[in-house]
Amino acid sequence: MISNQEGKMDHNYALIMAGGSGTRFWPLSRGQKPKQFLDITGGKPLIAQVFDRIRNFIDVDRIYVIAGNSHKKAILEALPSMNPGNLILEPAARNTAPAIGLATVMIHAKDPDAVMAVMPSDHHIGDNEAFSNVMKAAFKAAGDAVIVTLGITPSRPETGYGYIRKGGSIGKVGVFEIFGVDAFVEKPDRARAVDYVMSGRYLWNSGMFFFRVREMMREIETHLPVVFEGLQKIIDPANRNKFTEMLETVFEKMPNISIDYGIMEKVKGIRVIPASIAWSDVGSWASLPEVCETDGRGNVIIGDVVLIDSDNCVIESKAQIITAVGLHSTAVIVTGDSVLVCPLDRTQDVKKIVAELEKKGREDLL
Amino acid sequence: MISNQEGKMDHNYALIMAGGSGTRFWPLSRGQKPKQFLDITGGKPLIAQVFDRIRNFIDVDRIYVIAGNSHKKAILEALPSMNPGNLILEPAARNTAPAIGLATVMIHAKDPDAVMAVMPSDHHIGDNEAFSNVMKAAFKAAGDAVIVTLGITPSRPETGYGYIRKGGSIGKVGVFEIFGVDAFVEKPDRARAVDYVMSGRYLWNSGMFFFRVREMMREIETHLPVVFEGLQKIIDPANRNKFTEMLETVFEKMPNISIDYGIMEKVKGIRVIPASIAWSDVGSWASLPEVCETDGRGNVIIGDVVLIDSDNCVIESKAQIITAVGLHSTAVIVTGDSVLVCPLDRTQDVKKIVAELEKKGREDLL
Repeated sequence: MISNQEGKMDHNYALIMAGGSGTRFWPLSRGQKPKQFLDITGGKPLIAQVFDRIRNFIDVDRIYVIAGNSHKKAILEALPSMNPGNLILEPAARNTAPAIGLATVMIHAKDPDAVMAVMPSDHHIGDNEAFSNVMKAAFKAAGDAVIVTLGITPSRPETGYGYIRKGGSIGKVGVFEIFGVDAFVEKPDRARAVDYVMSGRYLWNSGMFFFRVREMMREIETHLPVVFEGLQKIIDPANRNKFTEMLETVFEKMPNISIDYGIMEKVKGIRVIPASIAWSDVGSWASLPEVCETDGRGNVIIGDVVLIDSDNCVIESKAQIITAVGLHSTAVIVTGDSVLVCPLDRTQDVKKIVAELEKKGREDLL
Repeated sequence: MISNQEGKMDHNYALIMAGGSGTRFWPLSRGQKPKQFLDITGGKPLIAQVFDRIRNFIDVDRIYVIAGNSHKKAILEALPSMNPGNLILEPAARNTAPAIGLATVMIHAKDPDAVMAVMPSDHHIGDNEAFSNVMKAAFKAAGDAVIVTLGITPSRPETGYGYIRKGGSIGKVGVFEIFGVDAFVEKPDRARAVDYVMSGRYLWNSGMFFFRVREMMREIETHLPVVFEGLQKIIDPANRNKFTEMLETVFEKMPNISIDYGIMEKVKGIRVIPASIAWSDVGSWASLPEVCETDGRGNVIIGDVVLIDSDNCVIESKAQIITAVGLHSTAVIVTGDSVLVCPLDRTQDVKKIVAELEKKGREDLL
């Protein structure tokens, strides 16, 4: 524990969730290089952007990363300034509840007064200063609540995100108002999404949330007793000499369950802090115009490209030049071994291509 | 002169016009490799297909090729069985009238009774046997006429072709009826094209025609006296020892004029022989479905390709795999150094890309 600028003991910790896999950014993303490790936006890998953003107000020694065993090398490469001792490797993928539980007990063992921020490693935030401000407020708010989630004020009726329905106002932290949470709501259809945005009562669920580790352990004990029991075995000081072995044995047997389903939707007294920041979960190639610069006709252009009479396209080359004429709302992605062409309203189906390549035994491309 | 199968002297000659350049098949076509040298359809280069087709009924020693100086190597590579002495190299590009005039006087010097077929080197014909039959009839018909052109019975209201309006019937050669020519008509708009096809009086202008060299020389003398005079100088036996030198000097000064404008539209008594054969001028990427096999959804697929839920596309890779999902009526062409993506109704604008690359000084891609 070190002191923060104000001279008080600083118990703020961050956990970056880097266990994600997925194929929606194929051909850039591969089995060994999922989205968080990609410089999709033409700059640093998303996970490095998240790390740098958090470093602005949390010391690197209190920033943890959790990921699958197989991504150890990718993480240390993407985050050269992280403390390698803070990299937690899951021996098996068991969804977010066991992963966050594991980090929680480990941080609790080090600092029982810790307040933890959980952050996805593969989202984009456009405004670092506004983000810092709301993060600080959320850490403070988490001191009085069980869990505080970050909700994004929606800028459009997005059907690709889950929503949070605000309850009544609880009070303020600085300029930020804190609300109760009425409900977590699944991805809506278009009509519902429009209603949500019009009502002013709904926020996008950012997947970022804050809690005291002590509180979270209690909630896990209550709602996920099997997980809690496993975590206790792993963290038991009596097993200290065989931590890795215990972790492997116990984690393997954990139930596969998400923090949303296992904890968030069950905890009473959860709160939400709304933030008006540019945020995107960068869910597919179609989301690039939200997170990258566009030209005068709405095109995202990365790499060697000649584009004529085309608009609202996402054109990215890591290899030879891409040329197009008369193209509209289409993604063209080129790597050294693959070319992908897909209308932007079909980018969620890139996984079908990956499935077909698997079927054809094209492991070289996966 | 050699005897044909029937024991008669065979005076039939063919001239393959290989002087074309153009950019509509970029990125496959390049300055040094225009369309006629490409295996666009996934098989042999177009010019080799034309040559093989003609060889079926004309001896190789009577097949001539005319092209620009710079394409000498490409032609001899594409046509390993041609007689290299029959390759006529234009010292300068002066359009089709001087080129055909040159070949005419050269063949006339060898065989004054020659009947010549002029064939583009970059068109596609689907049915070799039907083509042989109509060619033989056209050679015969050319014995009685000034010029006989080959007209293709239109299968659709194509706006990309010139048309020939038939006159009255002149008679028959075997099963083929011969007609007078009322007029050569420019590429029509859609409404006119529909009228043309409905009327039954119009044929596509195939660019193939047949004439006795003696007749053609008379017509050139009448309609293009400057060209005629130049050709006389080049072919003058007094200049035999300095043929190449004379050719260079004289050809350079030839007017730039097409055979259609300079001769065909002016000659009286021109005739047309209609043929119902699968023919295409392979004018752009959009024409590939006419000349290549398509899958059950109308896609032309050449090379390493994975295509999902897509139709009427032209997908061709000479390099890495092309993948697409939800794509319609679009061309995707990949070479080692370039990727082209273009809706099929815009493929005539590929030249705009080439122009842009020129402007950017990307000679490596041209």
